[in-house]
Amino acid sequence: MHASDTLRTNLQSILVDLIALHLQGQQAHWNIVGPNFRDLHLQLDEIVGEVRVFSDQLAERLRALDAQPDGRIETVTATTHLPSFPVGEVLTTDAVNLITQRLNLTVENMRVVHDSVDEEDPISADILHVFIEKLEQYAWMVSAENRQPQSAAQN
Amino acid sequence: MHASDTLRTNLQSILVDLIALHLQGQQAHWNIVGPNFRDLHLQLDEIVGEVRVFSDQLAERLRALDAQPDGRIETVTATTHLPSFPVGEVLTTDAVNLITQRLNLTVENMRVVHDSVDEEDPISADILHVFIEKLEQYAWMVSAENRQPQSAAQN
Amino acid sequence: MHASDTLRTNLQSILVDLIALHLQGQQAHWNIVGPNFRDLHLQLDEIVGEVRVFSDQLAERLRALDAQPDGRIETVTATTHLPSFPVGEVLTTDAVNLITQRLNLTVENMRVVHDSVDEEDPISADILHVFIEKLEQYAWMVSAENRQPQSAAQN
Amino acid sequence: MHASDTLRTNLQSILVDLIALHLQGQQAHWNIVGPNFRDLHLQLDEIVGEVRVFSDQLAERLRALDAQPDGRIETVTATTHLPSFPVGEVLTTDAVNLITQRLNLTVENMRVVHDSVDEEDPISADILHVFIEKLEQYAWMVSAENRQPQSAAQN
Amino acid sequence: MHASDTLRTNLQSILVDLIALHLQGQQAHWNIVGPNFRDLHLQLDEIVGEVRVFSDQLAERLRALDAQPDGRIETVTATTHLPSFPVGEVLTTDAVNLITQRLNLTVENMRVVHDSVDEEDPISADILHVFIEKLEQYAWMVSAENRQPQSAAQN
Amino acid sequence: MHASDTLRTNLQSILVDLIALHLQGQQAHWNIVGPNFRDLHLQLDEIVGEVRVFSDQLAERLRALDAQPDGRIETVTATTHLPSFPVGEVLTTDAVNLITQRLNLTVENMRVVHDSVDEEDPISADILHVFIEKLEQYAWMVSAENRQPQSAAQN
Amino acid sequence: MHASDTLRTNLQSILVDLIALHLQGQQAHWNIVGPNFRDLHLQLDEIVGEVRVFSDQLAERLRALDAQPDGRIETVTATTHLPSFPVGEVLTTDAVNLITQRLNLTVENMRVVHDSVDEEDPISADILHVFIEKLEQYAWMVSAENRQPQSAAQN
Amino acid sequence: MHASDTLRTNLQSILVDLIALHLQGQQAHWNIVGPNFRDLHLQLDEIVGEVRVFSDQLAERLRALDAQPDGRIETVTATTHLPSFPVGEVLTTDAVNLITQRLNLTVENMRVVHDSVDEEDPISADILHVFIEKLEQYAWMVSAENRQPQSAAQN
Amino acid sequence: MHASDTLRTNLQSILVDLIALHLQGQQAHWNIVGPNFRDLHLQLDEIVGEVRVFSDQLAERLRALDAQPDGRIETVTATTHLPSFPVGEVLTTDAVNLITQRLNLTVENMRVVHDSVDEEDPISADILHVFIEKLEQYAWMVSAENRQPQSAAQN
Amino acid sequence: MHASDTLRTNLQSILVDLIALHLQGQQAHWNIVGPNFRDLHLQLDEIVGEVRVFSDQLAERLRALDAQPDGRIETVTATTHLPSFPVGEVLTTDAVNLITQRLNLTVENMRVVHDSVDEEDPISADILHVFIEKLEQYAWMVSAENRQPQSAAQN
Amino acid sequence: MHASDTLRTNLQSILVDLIALHLQGQQAHWNIVGPNFRDLHLQLDEIVGEVRVFSDQLAERLRALDAQPDGRIETVTATTHLPSFPVGEVLTTDAVNLITQRLNLTVENMRVVHDSVDEEDPISADILHVFIEKLEQYAWMVSAENRQPQSAAQN
Amino acid sequence: MHASDTLRTNLQSILVDLIALHLQGQQAHWNIVGPNFRDLHLQLDEIVGEVRVFSDQLAERLRALDAQPDGRIETVTATTHLPSFPVGEVLTTDAVNLITQRLNLTVENMRVVHDSVDEEDPISADILHVFIEKLEQYAWMVSAENRQPQSAAQN
Repeated sequence: MHASDTLRTNLQSILVDLIALHLQGQQAHWNIVGPNFRDLHLQLDEIVGEVRVFSDQLAERLRALDAQPDGRIETVTATTHLPSFPVGEVLTTDAVNLITQRLNLTVENMRVVHDSVDEEDPISADILHVFIEKLEQYAWMVSAENRQPQSAAQN
Repeated sequence: MHASDTLRTNLQSILVDLIALHLQGQQAHWNIVGPNFRDLHLQLDEIVGEVRVFSDQLAERLRALDAQPDGRIETVTATTHLPSFPVGEVLTTDAVNLITQRLNLTVENMRVVHDSVDEEDPISADILHVFIEKLEQYAWMVSAENRQPQSAAQN
Repeated sequence: MHASDTLRTNLQSILVDLIALHLQGQQAHWNIVGPNFRDLHLQLDEIVGEVRVFSDQLAERLRALDAQPDGRIETVTATTHLPSFPVGEVLTTDAVNLITQRLNLTVENMRVVHDSVDEEDPISADILHVFIEKLEQYAWMVSAENRQPQSAAQN
Repeated sequence: MHASDTLRTNLQSILVDLIALHLQGQQAHWNIVGPNFRDLHLQLDEIVGEVRVFSDQLAERLRALDAQPDGRIETVTATTHLPSFPVGEVLTTDAVNLITQRLNLTVENMRVVHDSVDEEDPISADILHVFIEKLEQYAWMVSAENRQPQSAAQN
Repeated sequence: MHASDTLRTNLQSILVDLIALHLQGQQAHWNIVGPNFRDLHLQLDEIVGEVRVFSDQLAERLRALDAQPDGRIETVTATTHLPSFPVGEVLTTDAVNLITQRLNLTVENMRVVHDSVDEEDPISADILHVFIEKLEQYAWMVSAENRQPQSAAQN
Repeated sequence: MHASDTLRTNLQSILVDLIALHLQGQQAHWNIVGPNFRDLHLQLDEIVGEVRVFSDQLAERLRALDAQPDGRIETVTATTHLPSFPVGEVLTTDAVNLITQRLNLTVENMRVVHDSVDEEDPISADILHVFIEKLEQYAWMVSAENRQPQSAAQN
Repeated sequence: MHASDTLRTNLQSILVDLIALHLQGQQAHWNIVGPNFRDLHLQLDEIVGEVRVFSDQLAERLRALDAQPDGRIETVTATTHLPSFPVGEVLTTDAVNLITQRLNLTVENMRVVHDSVDEEDPISADILHVFIEKLEQYAWMVSAENRQPQSAAQN
Repeated sequence: MHASDTLRTNLQSILVDLIALHLQGQQAHWNIVGPNFRDLHLQLDEIVGEVRVFSDQLAERLRALDAQPDGRIETVTATTHLPSFPVGEVLTTDAVNLITQRLNLTVENMRVVHDSVDEEDPISADILHVFIEKLEQYAWMVSAENRQPQSAAQN
Repeated sequence: MHASDTLRTNLQSILVDLIALHLQGQQAHWNIVGPNFRDLHLQLDEIVGEVRVFSDQLAERLRALDAQPDGRIETVTATTHLPSFPVGEVLTTDAVNLITQRLNLTVENMRVVHDSVDEEDPISADILHVFIEKLEQYAWMVSAENRQPQSAAQN
Repeated sequence: MHASDTLRTNLQSILVDLIALHLQGQQAHWNIVGPNFRDLHLQLDEIVGEVRVFSDQLAERLRALDAQPDGRIETVTATTHLPSFPVGEVLTTDAVNLITQRLNLTVENMRVVHDSVDEEDPISADILHVFIEKLEQYAWMVSAENRQPQSAAQN
Repeated sequence: MHASDTLRTNLQSILVDLIALHLQGQQAHWNIVGPNFRDLHLQLDEIVGEVRVFSDQLAERLRALDAQPDGRIETVTATTHLPSFPVGEVLTTDAVNLITQRLNLTVENMRVVHDSVDEEDPISADILHVFIEKLEQYAWMVSAENRQPQSAAQN
Repeated sequence: MHASDTLRTNLQSILVDLIALHLQGQQAHWNIVGPNFRDLHLQLDEIVGEVRVFSDQLAERLRALDAQPDGRIETVTATTHLPSFPVGEVLTTDAVNLITQRLNLTVENMRVVHDSVDEEDPISADILHVFIEKLEQYAWMVSAENRQPQSAAQN
């Protein structure tokens, strides 16, 4: 199958976010300090590894659709939806919020293009479903560290 | 060997606690929030997995003694020694106390029936020893998170 | 994403069935006797293990959707679609029918809520697809033991 | 669930193509000669292995839907969409084209029946998505060997 | 070494039987029903996997002897010694007999060509020995299910 | 520690039974025919392997107690508690009974010497507990094949 | 294939030697003392494990040839070619000679029946070749411990 | 459970011996020379690794009993039952005796406190049983190297 | 140890090259076409994975020296020594040259800072040695594809 | 190579610190309580295991240089650079500081002797580099838990 | 068994070729350049590894036959059938021919001595069969790279 | 980097010693007899395997430095520093001395060229360090078998 311009643009816009998320997660993995350091350090490593696999799977899907993924550093910088990550050391509790926000932004963009992708190519949509399931799970697990219990009634 | 009514009743009373502990540990695994989230989430997963293996080993021991384990949900609800687990989200530090208490209750019942079991069937007693060693170890490890150092003199 | 009340109710209704199926499969695993014992004993063990993984995946999906799974024993007893499992020893050929029926009931409920789930959250729907594929496969494999060949024409 | 005649016919038409693809890939695996021999030999082995797993998964899905897969050699010969594979040795660069074409034909038939399958049974549709993703990936990777770069503008 | 026409014809005649056996074993694996279903289902899977490895080993031996194996579906249909496998569901006890017969036929043909092969190329003969040992073992194991004890005296 | 004559005699009497059980289980593994063949064939293999490990562990315990295990064939023949195993083919349902009986006899002798062993050397007693737990489990699993359900009330 | 009486008798005569060798190797494994203890203890364990696999493979070959292996203890005692193993502790250097001799005797009998076996069933002959290769290798390795260098000229 | 002073003192007295044994075994592992060097070097490595696991298991048992293990170097030096290990290189045959003696001393102390431990906490007693079984086995295996056969009559 | 400004600057300058190399290798992995496609595709995957491990090891070394690695995308873009990678599809033979050049540039910068690093911190120098060994090996292997044999004399 | 007295003294002074660090890390592993318990408990286990491997590698290096390592408990107590570890329970945050300090002291001594070692034996120096890299990494990771972010400017 | 002079001479003549083949394959593995480099580099590594295992197996067979293998470098140089390998870099397509020729020469010598070996010792002949099968397979696979398709008719 | 003539000559001189050591270790592995046979046989196998890996690593380092390793048999014979190994069987205690001497000679040559290598290419020097550490360790372990304890004072 040969991807339409729309499909290609949609998948490309997700690709750059995944690469940016990979690099920012790595930056946090290295520069956090404070309570719960080791646990968050290990969790970020797991997230970074998974996100790298996602970006590879998506880029290869673009190839299989006869399109050309652009994962060059200048393209990523110019087109990602993610805000910059602060320089230098970051407190663990701040990093929890910074990473949760970026996981949510990445998912949001996927949900925006989802229906358009699904209409043209349900196969690519299924790939996005797996990304979303996993990234939403990470967003919950990372953010849980900073949360207070809700009563079930408020749920 | 054919288990006496007493032996069967004793082992059955332990079985329902193990099943209840398994379900409550799972409930906590899903619903905790707050500091140290991921660490406790993972530890509960390990405890739940181990407890499930224990319940299977005990039920199969009952079978080998020509008795019939009853692990049905209505039997567990009606006969377990463990109090209910609260509904909805639970703060990690509260969950530490809730789970420690349930681990201790499960062990207490095992120690109550131990001598009677040992007299009739030392093989089953040995199985209980392994359960107790492991559950007391978990009780220590889970509770350590909430504790202050004792002086060695007070020990 | 924050699940609507409807989505949460639908996924919760599946969760309790999976937990009930897990406990009933375990009860059968322990109490069957008769021809083909070991084979069915092993197959039930495999089903029980898989179903436990499914319930964990679903409960964690609820968490990622900012909802609170309720897997407590009293909730399961009160709300599952599955009828009680008989107490005591069960003949293997009877157990084949009892378990097939419970696998089918679990799938039926999933198919009932499927379209509502899919509309709000295709990611959760995809998770259900995997559950249904596997449980329908188990229903075929368990029931095949008790069946007579159909002619291909009747198919 | 009991598959309708339409669903059964659709899945059966895919099954025979997968079996034919398996046998033709094997024939190529054995009879290629020429530049890049070992690489293509190994890649065909990987494709053949994956396709065999796909045919098994699809046939078992038919069983779970209470239908009877027909994978007999005479049925495959009579009903597959794939043209015959040439007898005797084949040059590697020719084999690249022959196999790419057959991968594309297999996917095309899947896309033809996809919407009909999806309407009746989204679970089977999801299975097809996985097949298509993988086979389109193989088609890209096999054909890349014979291709010249496109300019990005033409993409 | 360059195989003579006789050697090539002999090995080719075994190759088509192995491919036919592979496809028929798969057909049985999918379509059996009745007592002992799961056990036979698993055993057929093991046989099918082993037979596929044998066909690959034999075809590659032909290549090493500078001959060209023909494993195309039309060649297999036209030249195999195995009778067709019945369409649709098959009772497990019938399948035991059908598969035992086909295992025996495959071995018989190997024994027919054995001495001719051994004279020209003892290396290929050794490969056949391994096939025969394994297939005769499967024939025993599959058929044992349907047998009555012989007295040792009759042995 | 240096074993007393009584302790040595007790452990030696168990050793010969384990070696005899190993050889008889092997004989059954080879010579059974009839319904459920493969399943019983595999289960006997598992039992035989476990029993061989038990005999090695016990003999090495004797060495650690400065005594000399006698596992020679003439000693086993002369002193085992197990009756001979019939020659030639055995029907699977008969083998179930023959092996169950021998598992029970082996355990019975262990229970006879248990208290005497435990008084002198609780370490050896613990080793026996593991043997008894496993052999009673096998006795249940092997015999379950031939049993009818008991009502729970009769239990 | 159905084994002739001669073939069956030949293979049966090897089977009893393998079982006797297994038991004697085990007896030595337990009762040796003296220089090089641990090395010989480990080597005997390796030999015993391999020999047990050989006896199982040979007995299953007899079954595949429609004959009935007799591995009962009384048959082994009455018909093996191996002399008794001494009771009690054995010096390691003596054990080296005792085991080398028994390995050689086992191989000798195999070589005696080899041509007769090969004529009727080359598949069984190939199985013997593997046994002989391995047992002759063990005989060399065990005996090397007690040997003095030969000059190459004498070789 | 909260350990009594007696129980804590008993387990602590074993802990220091295990740590001392670990360090002395390591010292021997490094400094032996002479016949059978590599074999003993490897065996000491295995013993040292196992003993380290034992000390960890025992210290964690003390924690689970709400007591505080003291494994500090000054405590070990002051309270262990083991005599010092000689400085510098040691002949392998001397090391065999030195290590056998220390293994025996460690076990002796365990047997001294065993009954007192068992009365208060059978779970800890079971842990000791495993230590004793393994250390007595090592004592036999290490010492066997230096021994002459006993006649069975003297046993 | 606390790194001097010079040491930190040197290691940081290597870090950005490794991250750029990782992203460019990935871009090539996705966009190459032409002869030897699959081989180069796989080799690039291996290089990319290794380089990612190197960047993580180096960044963590900076942390251990109490410095803060900056791996943010804008920093990498601004400070790397590597030229941009072309957009869109690239012929395999061109990619060989492009990647070889970038591997060489990365190594060159490492060699430039090596002596300065070694003087202050030989531990970091050792880490660089491993990077250089591996990257020079990759440069040889990638470039070998495009080379003609040199005569040994010219070497 | 035969180590000079200086080289031997230098390596021996490192050996005793590694053994002391091993024992103190173990003591902390057992006796910590308080927030982040499990994480620190696991991390100390990892450090202790690694340090034990380092001491073995260093002692064997001394042997390869024809010197005699002295790892006896009295030598370690008398010559280590590490201060005593406090008795009894320790708060996790205190343990973080205690262990960080001891990791730093161990590294400091290595850096003191490094140049002298490197001059005589660069091979031993390389071994020290690996120790220092790993121990400095642990010092960072353990201490990060107690730290506040530095601004990048202060770096 | 004690090998005759003829048998020893035959096996020794194969041994030196295998050692020479091992060294020449290694030389090619290091010095090839040109198209298909990495693929051939990896394949040569696989061949070299396998051939080393063959030489070890053959030499140990000579030992088991009470003969003394001579694998010294001067013996190999003086007696191998293989011509020298060129010095310096070699083009991949030339290396394909050089290695194919050496594989064929090694096999040719094996076929020359085969019947003489088989007559005296069929066990050694079986070992040669495995070598020949594998080396002929490698000869096909290596040479296929340089070949053009034959028409099936010419076969 | 392009190696100078000096560097190339130095590394080449080490390469031929490693290949000669590999072949001589193999010759000893096959032809030793006498006390401690199996232990030395196994240790030589380990040394031979490691040395082969070293020669491959060194030859590939030469390639990465754009030089051409010469590992042809005639080059090795002409240029190695190692004396010939005796023909025929060798007593184990003699082999210990012969191999120790050759390990020491190989290391000596490495130490001779070390400083020259290190000056031009510290990366290659680091590779040599690993070789020397391992070979010196082997020299100690092999020779320890034949040694008497030194008093620590003489050290």
